[in-house]
Amino acid sequence: MSQAHSMKAAVWHGRRDIRLEDVPLPAAPGPGWVQIKVHWCGICGSDLHEYLAGPVFIPVDQAHPLTGLKGQCILGHEFSGEIVALGEGVAGFEPGERVAADACQHCGQCWYCEQGLYNICENLAFTGLMNNGAFAEYVNVPANLLYKLPENFPTEAGALIEPLAVGMHAVKKAGSLVGETVVVVGAGTIGLCTIMCAKAAGAARVIALEMSSARKRKALEVGATRVLDPNECDVVAEIKALTGGYGAPVSFECIGHKSTAKLALDVIRKAGKAVMVGIFEEPSDFNFFDIVSTEKQVIGSLAYNGEFADVIALIDDGRLDVRPLITGRIELADILDRGFEELANNKDENVKIIVTPDLAVAS
Amino acid sequence: MSQAHSMKAAVWHGRRDIRLEDVPLPAAPGPGWVQIKVHWCGICGSDLHEYLAGPVFIPVDQAHPLTGLKGQCILGHEFSGEIVALGEGVAGFEPGERVAADACQHCGQCWYCEQGLYNICENLAFTGLMNNGAFAEYVNVPANLLYKLPENFPTEAGALIEPLAVGMHAVKKAGSLVGETVVVVGAGTIGLCTIMCAKAAGAARVIALEMSSARKRKALEVGATRVLDPNECDVVAEIKALTGGYGAPVSFECIGHKSTAKLALDVIRKAGKAVMVGIFEEPSDFNFFDIVSTEKQVIGSLAYNGEFADVIALIDDGRLDVRPLITGRIELADILDRGFEELANNKDENVKIIVTPDLAVAS
Ligand SMILES: [Zn+2]
Ligand SMILES: [Zn+2]
Ligand SMILES: [Zn+2]
Ligand SMILES: [Zn+2]
Repeated sequence: MSQAHSMKAAVWHGRRDIRLEDVPLPAAPGPGWVQIKVHWCGICGSDLHEYLAGPVFIPVDQAHPLTGLKGQCILGHEFSGEIVALGEGVAGFEPGERVAADACQHCGQCWYCEQGLYNICENLAFTGLMNNGAFAEYVNVPANLLYKLPENFPTEAGALIEPLAVGMHAVKKAGSLVGETVVVVGAGTIGLCTIMCAKAAGAARVIALEMSSARKRKALEVGATRVLDPNECDVVAEIKALTGGYGAPVSFECIGHKSTAKLALDVIRKAGKAVMVGIFEEPSDFNFFDIVSTEKQVIGSLAYNGEFADVIALIDDGRLDVRPLITGRIELADILDRGFEELANNKDENVKIIVTPDLAVAS
Repeated sequence: MSQAHSMKAAVWHGRRDIRLEDVPLPAAPGPGWVQIKVHWCGICGSDLHEYLAGPVFIPVDQAHPLTGLKGQCILGHEFSGEIVALGEGVAGFEPGERVAADACQHCGQCWYCEQGLYNICENLAFTGLMNNGAFAEYVNVPANLLYKLPENFPTEAGALIEPLAVGMHAVKKAGSLVGETVVVVGAGTIGLCTIMCAKAAGAARVIALEMSSARKRKALEVGATRVLDPNECDVVAEIKALTGGYGAPVSFECIGHKSTAKLALDVIRKAGKAVMVGIFEEPSDFNFFDIVSTEKQVIGSLAYNGEFADVIALIDDGRLDVRPLITGRIELADILDRGFEELANNKDENVKIIVTPDLAVAS
């Protein structure tokens, strides 16, 4: 009897302490919420970060104001699945429909939410970090964050919508890229997704800056026109040479290292835009005169705001091909060894490892 | 005979070495240039900076690529006067006309100039720093940088157009301010000009941050709604309290201190804009995650790009009143004692000291 009311889940308890446990099934979804049977969920850099260096975003001292979560959390926010139960008042969805879910759970009450800027909500409760996520058999999420997957949409691609939406949001922040040369600093998952979205947005040339040889190959595979290695050349000089002497109009910082923010600014021309996407831990030594004297712009980009729709449309019509991004397909039972430890030990060789509760069901 | 071919000028020779000298009159203006008899020229913070800590912008090691200037420079770029001679091909101007001159001498050849972004020209030769300026009886400038002063335009106001254009350019960079609350960090000359331009742009409330009591009074005099002193209160908390808990949509950094760049970002709400105008000397310790996590934008603003026209129109119709900005009217003969030394010793009590070669002619 109790078996039917429990499920397997990967629960964060602390740094280096993620446990594969039997936990209670989520309660029946409340008003406006749905319950989803998880098909695939990708392991994110931020999940790995919580594992190796957390807590970063998981609340441990105070309960999250929106969700009450504190101290323990089922990780996983890059997922797709199938609706199994609808809460009160949910319209437009049916059990059995395949969906992906935007992870920006928000309060709907603050000024940002009122303006539609829900990704910077004052009480943001990111799925899988501030509320239980999808490294589990079932997960509850708000229906207003759901996107239906088209017929014949590849099931496993559902897990790649979220990181691609991050890249798409950053690309939109830069304004029109059609015909332009852009620089993407870093070819990790978000860098690769940004390369793909910049190409999809019509960028003529995408120059990726990357040092790992595995990631260099991936960058070219997903559409980078050129990859430059800061260890092998003066990338600023090289990019100026490739852009008539001035620099690129737009760059995207997708690493978050204290030295790469300045690099992202150095590779753009005056009046250019540097979109910052990386999760910076350490402060940079930065002279703001570099911005004043050049009229450059720095634009922060966090998560996404509606870009799930764009990404689904472009995966569906073939303009975004997620296959090069998937470097592993594993079962939830193996998430520690073949997921977190594999990523910790072979970071450069992997892009996205996707996880399913049941390989037989998901494929 | 040689008397008629010389004039008095304030020449920068080195740090703490500005000399009032007899120098040759400028040569007859070349094609596209005019010669101007100077009426009034304001002493800028950057002039003072060249005096106390220069060379900052004055070329001393290599001749400037556009003007050939090197090592010595007649200072002065905030000026108005009367046309006395026209070079070949100058149309639309007549001797005797009163004009002010945009100081951004530019090459007209680079990509930025082609785009009309002449203020960030690759070979910018700022008048009075990279080419001889207007602390002199006569100065030569390119006709394409001239703006005619309307009839009855107050003569001395001509010297305030330039710093107001700096404020106006910064204000335009922020987009529409009508009805908004904005924060201006610092109430020096550029801060005060920015307060005035923000009010002229329709800002409902302008909150100035300032520590000097003389400048606090000035800020209120030129239109600030409120002045907050970082030594007396938690300005970030105060501004949040004044803006519904979120912060202002826009701030302007007009100091250039390593700590005030971050302050300008801290006082704005998420997705807000911080326009950087100050001339920063030292790097800041800055975590770019402050921008990523909030989607804030940082926008550099340098000099001006056509804003002389706007400023002249708004001074002319009375919406910009320059009188509170003028704290001294002196003759060129007194520029060292009553100009540079006065500013060095009584920085807070002064805003703009304007200088004329001849009080009798200029008033
Ligand atoms: Zn993620
Ligand atoms: Zn909210
Ligand atoms: Zn000036
Ligand atoms: Zn130019």
